[in-house]
Amino acid sequence: MDEPLAAPVADRTPLYRALAGQYRSAIESGALRPGERFPSVRTLMGRHGVSLSTALQVCRSLESEGWLEARPRSGNFVRRPKRFAAAALQEPDHAALPDPAQFVGIHARVSDFVARGIVARSKGKPVRINLSGAACAPALYPGEALKNAATRALRRHPDLLVKNIALNGNAGFRGILARRAMESGMVLSPDEIVVTHGCIEALNVALRAVAQPGDIVAVESPTYFGLLQVLESLGLRALEIPTSPQTGISLEALELATRTYPEIKAVVVVPVLQNPLGSIMPDAHKARLVALCDAAGIALIEDDTYGALANGDAPRKALKHWDRTGNVIHCASLHKILAAGMRLGWISAGRRQARVEMLKYAQTRSSEELSQLAAGEFIASSAFDRYLRRLRGQLADQRARTAAAIAECFPAGTRFNEPDGGLMLWIELPADISSQRVFDAALDEGILVAPGQMFSNSNRFDNYLRLNCGLPFTDEVEAALRRLGQLVAQARR
Amino acid sequence: MDEPLAAPVADRTPLYRALAGQYRSAIESGALRPGERFPSVRTLMGRHGVSLSTALQVCRSLESEGWLEARPRSGNFVRRPKRFAAAALQEPDHAALPDPAQFVGIHARVSDFVARGIVARSKGKPVRINLSGAACAPALYPGEALKNAATRALRRHPDLLVKNIALNGNAGFRGILARRAMESGMVLSPDEIVVTHGCIEALNVALRAVAQPGDIVAVESPTYFGLLQVLESLGLRALEIPTSPQTGISLEALELATRTYPEIKAVVVVPVLQNPLGSIMPDAHKARLVALCDAAGIALIEDDTYGALANGDAPRKALKHWDRTGNVIHCASLHKILAAGMRLGWISAGRRQARVEMLKYAQTRSSEELSQLAAGEFIASSAFDRYLRRLRGQLADQRARTAAAIAECFPAGTRFNEPDGGLMLWIELPADISSQRVFDAALDEGILVAPGQMFSNSNRFDNYLRLNCGLPFTDEVEAALRRLGQLVAQARR
Repeated sequence: MDEPLAAPVADRTPLYRALAGQYRSAIESGALRPGERFPSVRTLMGRHGVSLSTALQVCRSLESEGWLEARPRSGNFVRRPKRFAAAALQEPDHAALPDPAQFVGIHARVSDFVARGIVARSKGKPVRINLSGAACAPALYPGEALKNAATRALRRHPDLLVKNIALNGNAGFRGILARRAMESGMVLSPDEIVVTHGCIEALNVALRAVAQPGDIVAVESPTYFGLLQVLESLGLRALEIPTSPQTGISLEALELATRTYPEIKAVVVVPVLQNPLGSIMPDAHKARLVALCDAAGIALIEDDTYGALANGDAPRKALKHWDRTGNVIHCASLHKILAAGMRLGWISAGRRQARVEMLKYAQTRSSEELSQLAAGEFIASSAFDRYLRRLRGQLADQRARTAAAIAECFPAGTRFNEPDGGLMLWIELPADISSQRVFDAALDEGILVAPGQMFSNSNRFDNYLRLNCGLPFTDEVEAALRRLGQLVAQARR
Repeated sequence: MDEPLAAPVADRTPLYRALAGQYRSAIESGALRPGERFPSVRTLMGRHGVSLSTALQVCRSLESEGWLEARPRSGNFVRRPKRFAAAALQEPDHAALPDPAQFVGIHARVSDFVARGIVARSKGKPVRINLSGAACAPALYPGEALKNAATRALRRHPDLLVKNIALNGNAGFRGILARRAMESGMVLSPDEIVVTHGCIEALNVALRAVAQPGDIVAVESPTYFGLLQVLESLGLRALEIPTSPQTGISLEALELATRTYPEIKAVVVVPVLQNPLGSIMPDAHKARLVALCDAAGIALIEDDTYGALANGDAPRKALKHWDRTGNVIHCASLHKILAAGMRLGWISAGRRQARVEMLKYAQTRSSEELSQLAAGEFIASSAFDRYLRRLRGQLADQRARTAAAIAECFPAGTRFNEPDGGLMLWIELPADISSQRVFDAALDEGILVAPGQMFSNSNRFDNYLRLNCGLPFTDEVEAALRRLGQLVAQARR
C-alpha cells in the first residue's frame, strides 16, 4: 500500500521506523515521559498523515523495544525499557536461618523519625513533599461519591447515630464484604466477618487470639513497621524471615525456622503487594504456605490491605482460599484502596472466630455503622470496579514515572523492582549509604521519606528507602525525586 | 382571706388539707404515678377555684409529706415517699479483706446469658422489653441535631472521608472536650487528650499502659461486666473491693488490700454513678483515693461514663481534679450521655500519656473524624446543656416510676437505693432468690434483665438484678416490671 509522505525521510528507512525513531528520541530526551499516554493510532494517522497499518507498526515496534506498554482498554503508555531502569533487587538467602527472634524495639525508632519531623517543622521547615506514606492523594479516592453515600445513609437512617450499634458490624456491609471476598476465592458467610477499625485492629485481635506475651511470631523481612509496633505493644517476639522481592516470604527459610523455634505461634504475611517490597506470592507458594502452617500447628495470619491495587482486573487469590482447617486468619482493609479517612477493616478468623469476636468486643465494642453504610453502598455499586480500574491505571502511571526518575537520578548501584501494582517502591541504595542520613538531609529540604530502618528490627535495611507513589506525579514530585537522587549521592561522602 | 368553696368539704378540715388528701389518695391509688408532673399552682387555682395561697399550701403540704418533689425550673413531680419505697441496700463490710485476686472468667458467663437470649429467640420468643442494658432509648438522644451536624460536617469538609486522619483525634474536638473537662475541675490541654473508641478502648489502653498479664487490678464490687471482660481478655487478675451503694469503693478495704497485695498495679473506679450501684463518691473520698493510690504507687484509672447524668446542673468533680503527680488516668465517653450509635470516648493519661498514645495508635490508629465533628458541634453549642438538663429530668422521672413499681410489686425483702442520677437501678432480691432463675423465667416472657452474676467474678451478687431506666416509662414497661415482681416471688419456690 502506498503511503503519502508525512515527514521528511532522508533514506530508505521504512516510514514506520523513522517515526518510531522520532518517538524513541522524544522519550529519551524526556519530551515524552514514562507513564504518559502515547498518542493513539488515530492521532498518529492524523498527525503524520500515515495509514492505519503504518501507525500500528510504529506502536508495535516501540512496544517490542520496550518503550510502550499496552494497557487493555486504556491504550498505549510510555515506559522506559528495563535496560534503562535500575538493577533489580537481589533475592535473599532462602537457605539462611533467620536471626534469633527478639522483642521489638521499633517504636523508639519510629518515634525518633517522627520527632525529627516535628523538630524540622519547629525550625520553620515544613514538609513540602511527603513520600513517606503508603496512601493515595485524597483526589485519587472517590471522596464525592462516599460523601454523598454518607449523607444518604444519614437521611435514610435518621436514628443511626443514637441507636444501638449492630454486633460485629452492620449486617448489610458484612454481606457486601462476603460477596467481594468470593472474588478472591473465599467462601464466607457474613456471620464469619467482624468489622474492625482498619487492618491494624484486625491484626491486633488476630495476634491476641493466638499468642501470649513472650511468644514468637514469624514475619516477613523487611516488613511494615506498623506490624512491628503491634508486636512490640503486645510483648511478642519477632522472627524475621527472609522475603523475596518477587515471590514474598521464603518458604524454605520459614520451614527451617519452624523446625528450629517450636515457640512460633503465628506467621503474618502480606501475600499480595507486600509492604514495603511489593512482592506477590505465586499461587503455588500460597498453597504451600497454608499447608506448611497447618502441618506445623502455627496460625497463619494474612493481611490483605493492598490486594485490590494489583495490576489486572482479576483479583489475586487470598491464602484463605486454600484453608481447609480454619487455620488462616484473614485480615483486610479498605483504608488504602478506598478512603484514607475511613478506618474500615475486617477479619475472618476461621476456627478462632469466637475468640476474635470476644477480643474485638472487649477492645473497642462494635464499630460505628455510618462509614460502613457509606462504603457499602459504593462497593456494592458498579462504580467500585470502575473506580478501582482507573486507580490501578493512575498508580501504574505514577509508579512508572517515579521509577524512571529514580533510574535516571539516583547514583549507580541503586536497585529496585517495579512491583505489579500498589503504592510504593522499595529502593536499595548503594551499601555504604545510610538512609537515615538521607532522611535527615531530605527533611532539611522539606522532603519526607521512609528510611529502611523502620521496616526491620535489625539494621539489615539501613541502606533502603520506601517511596510512596500515591501522589500525582507533578513537577514538584519529580523535582523532589531528582533532589533526593543528589542527596543520596552526597550521603555517600 | 375567704375562699369560695370548690369541692364539697364535709367537715372543718381546712380546704388545702382536703385537696391535698384527694391528691394523696390519687397517688396511693395509682391514678397519679410517681415521676408524673403534678398540676401547676395555676392549674390547681383554676381547677378547684382556690386562691394562690391555698394552691401553694396544697403543694407545700404534699411536698413536706414526701409526695411531691420540686425540681428547679421544671415544677413539681409526683413521688412516693421513702416510707413506701423498698428498704435501702446495706453497706458492705468496709473492714473486710477482699477475696484473693483471681483471673476473670466472666466472658463465659456473659456469653451464656447472651446465648440463652439467642436460644429464646430461635424458639420464637423475641425480647419485647429489654431492661438489661444501660442506655437511653434512641428518642431520648439528640438524633436529629447530630444527624444535621454530621451532614453539615460532610458538606464543610468534602475531603473528610478520603484525607488522612488527624493524629490522636480531631484537634477542634479535643479542644471542645478540654473546655468541658474544666467543668469537672480538670485543667487539660487538647494535646493531653486522645480520642478513643468509647470508654472501653480507653480502659484497654489505660490498663495495658500500667499492667502486664498476671498483674492484679483492684476493681469495685459489684462492677461493670465490660471491665471484667477487659481484664479477662488482657490476662489480668481482678481484686474485688467492697463498694458502698452510697459512697463508692471502700477506701478502708482498698487500703487494707494495697498492704496485703503489693502486686496491685492499678485501681479502676467509676466515681460518679457507679455501674451498677449508682453510687457517687463524696469529694473528700475522691481526694483520699487519689492520695492513697499516689502513696502506694498504684495507677488510678477513673471511668467517667455517666457523670453528666448526675442530678443537678453542677458537674461533679473528676478524680483528676486532685491529681498532682500525673497518676490519674481519666477515661470518659459520650456513648451513654449523647449518642448510643457513636463510639466516642477519650483518655487523658497524665504521666503515662506517651505510652497510652503509642498503645492507642498500635491498636486502632487514630479514630475517624466525622463523628467527632458532629458531636463537637453539638457539644460546643448551648443546646448541649439544655439537652442534658432535659435528659436528667426524664431519667429522674423514669427512675422514680421504675422504683415505685418495684417497691410496689416485688416481694418483701427486696432492697434498692434510688441513685442521685443515671440510668439504672441495682436491685437486691431476697437472699434465697437466684437472679439466674429470674432471668430465665423473664426471658421466657420476652423480658430481658441483667442478672447479678454478670457484675462480679464471685457469686456474691447472685440475688441481684440491674434494671435499665433509660426507656420511657410506658404501660408495657410498667407491665413488665409488675410481671418481673411476680416472677421474682415465684422464683422463691
